[in-house]
Amino acid sequence: KTHVDCMTSQKIVRLPGLIDPPWRGGVTMVCAMPNTAPAITDPSSLAIAQKLAKAGCRCDYALYLGAASDNAAILPSIASSVAGLKMYLNDTYTTLKMDNITIWMEHFEKWPKHLPILAHAERQTVAAILMVAQLYQRPVHICHVAKKEEILIIRAAKQRGIQVTCEVAPHHLFLCDENVSTIGKGRARVCPMLGSREDMEALWENLDIIDCFATDHAPHAVEEKDSESPPPGYPGLETMLPLLLTAVSEGRLTVDDIIKRLYDNPRKIFSLPAQDDTFIEVDLEQEWTIPKHMQFTKSKWTPFEGMKVTGKVRRVVLRGEVAYIDGQVLVPPGFGEDVKTWPTSAPAPVPAPEPIKEPV
Amino acid sequence: KTHVDCMTSQKIVRLPGLIDPPWRGGVTMVCAMPNTAPAITDPSSLAIAQKLAKAGCRCDYALYLGAASDNAAILPSIASSVAGLKMYLNDTYTTLKMDNITIWMEHFEKWPKHLPILAHAERQTVAAILMVAQLYQRPVHICHVAKKEEILIIRAAKQRGIQVTCEVAPHHLFLCDENVSTIGKGRARVCPMLGSREDMEALWENLDIIDCFATDHAPHAVEEKDSESPPPGYPGLETMLPLLLTAVSEGRLTVDDIIKRLYDNPRKIFSLPAQDDTFIEVDLEQEWTIPKHMQFTKSKWTPFEGMKVTGKVRRVVLRGEVAYIDGQVLVPPGFGEDVKTWPTSAPAPVPAPEPIKEPV
Ligand SMILES: [Zn+2]
Ligand SMILES: [Zn+2]
Ligand SMILES: [Zn+2]
Ligand SMILES: [Zn+2]
Ligand SMILES: [Zn+2]
Ligand SMILES: [Zn+2]
Ligand SMILES: [Zn+2]
Ligand SMILES: [Zn+2]
Repeated sequence: KTHVDCMTSQKIVRLPGLIDPPWRGGVTMVCAMPNTAPAITDPSSLAIAQKLAKAGCRCDYALYLGAASDNAAILPSIASSVAGLKMYLNDTYTTLKMDNITIWMEHFEKWPKHLPILAHAERQTVAAILMVAQLYQRPVHICHVAKKEEILIIRAAKQRGIQVTCEVAPHHLFLCDENVSTIGKGRARVCPMLGSREDMEALWENLDIIDCFATDHAPHAVEEKDSESPPPGYPGLETMLPLLLTAVSEGRLTVDDIIKRLYDNPRKIFSLPAQDDTFIEVDLEQEWTIPKHMQFTKSKWTPFEGMKVTGKVRRVVLRGEVAYIDGQVLVPPGFGEDVKTWPTSAPAPVPAPEPIKEPV
Repeated sequence: KTHVDCMTSQKIVRLPGLIDPPWRGGVTMVCAMPNTAPAITDPSSLAIAQKLAKAGCRCDYALYLGAASDNAAILPSIASSVAGLKMYLNDTYTTLKMDNITIWMEHFEKWPKHLPILAHAERQTVAAILMVAQLYQRPVHICHVAKKEEILIIRAAKQRGIQVTCEVAPHHLFLCDENVSTIGKGRARVCPMLGSREDMEALWENLDIIDCFATDHAPHAVEEKDSESPPPGYPGLETMLPLLLTAVSEGRLTVDDIIKRLYDNPRKIFSLPAQDDTFIEVDLEQEWTIPKHMQFTKSKWTPFEGMKVTGKVRRVVLRGEVAYIDGQVLVPPGFGEDVKTWPTSAPAPVPAPEPIKEPV
């Protein structure tokens, strides 16, 4: 049983199936990150990940490849099977470490020009990867922007007509370092770390240049998060849409803002195909409090515990099948399909982001 | 008495008075760095530095201002008294710390457009500051490039027509990590650290895009360098020209390459005035071995000890006076003048570096 306080509600709206985390949160297509164990960095690790996803996923999905210091040459051969290349530029310990700009440049040189590159880049590394992208005259997508300095350099770059897109995670929009003591120091670990209140407010003030929302869902077990060396990351799937809908009820966002950042823009940036007969229904007025943990996430905790929210997913229809309705999951693992295997998903050129009109 | 082995020599050539370190090394104008104690960051610290230099310098000089996290607004009022603004972008402990791109941007916004900006930037920070300079459409000068990845990103940027200039220190051209055990670990500390042989060779291979040579002279006492926490830096004034002339004798450089990088380019980049009746005479053929320490440097050690070199400064004429001849200093402290007080040194626009013709 979940710990949700229910109230009567009236205003149901229908949205397209959203893209990022699985439909348990109202999302019908997930783009899975390559920093798994093993990391997805070559044909054999990709084959393993494809097999696991095919057997286990209830929603549609696309995979990413991970850039490493030694795989720039082999990736183009499997590039068309994935949604993009992810570069972990501040990572200094895993196999996806790439602590040298010449390696970044090699990936920009080799990765097919029409397929997207995503960067995990923090602080001044955002400026560094924008420069490299500029040198190769190609777009780059900055993941989970978290700091004021990051969003401001992206704003300045967009104003100059530089082809950059970016995404923000809900925890950087709805939490800041003031929440760390309540969450607990170990559980609060996340990468990038929660910013200051000023950082959080800067993201809201620059909402116009945030192209996507994305969870960066990391469902570590409570035992892991409470251990001596807690791994970074939060579960975020099931809480994202309620938090964003709450912002709608407060007048800080519109439903269109959400659709643009969780459907239109991700589709454009990552050349993702449409899912036929796929939509979700959300109740814009249901008020409830986020419980100790969400119903379907394997991670039995949430950093948003206790937050009062307004808005809830009622029904998810995926390719004509009712996949979810009022807390009940109706499709089995394996129902999800790899959208990159669909005949329609021929790679299309990545469109430039819309230019910003205001002066610098 | 110095420890120099002398040999007969014949080929004397006359060069312009070189720019960077004092004329003891054949250099007649020094551009002094602002990371002194106190750092040169505002009108009062500038006044102190001007007074000290006026009393003590035997060669002409220009000072730089140091960018800090809180002085962007006050610097323009004193900008015309200095040769440029130096930003220490990898510094994380002194008062010149600026660990936030929004502060970098503030300096680019406020610092007068026609005056130079220099950056101490290592590795990916080179790409980051190039991006910021791009956003403000102004040139930036990268100090002491030391790594292959740094020179390659600068080459790529120049090929794209980006306005960047750079300088290399002699120790990064003539030493690498293979020399550390001989020099000693504490003494070998320098910032940026000596690179690998591959880094050192990459600098020579990309000599065509290196605009200036500069010593980054740091004459710490032997006792400091041999202590528990040795400060980073080498003395380099008196050894620079002999090392470069040795490269000439080996066919790796021409005398013109040296004049371009120690006279023409620094004058252009930093809008420095000409010194009338000023030149040096060097002996291109004198062979000697670098001793335990050089004659005039207060730091009684050199990382180049024991290296056989070919070439020596014989005579320095500064504004019509013989300032130095064969080991004898003939002008007193205070003979040097601040070139920024000369009536001719009205600020001129910084010229764009010459574009590179080859394709990427
Ligand atoms: Zn799944
Ligand atoms: Zn990431
Ligand atoms: Zn885990
Ligand atoms: Zn429970
Ligand atoms: Zn001096
Ligand atoms: Zn420096
Ligand atoms: Zn010292
Ligand atoms: Zn001695």
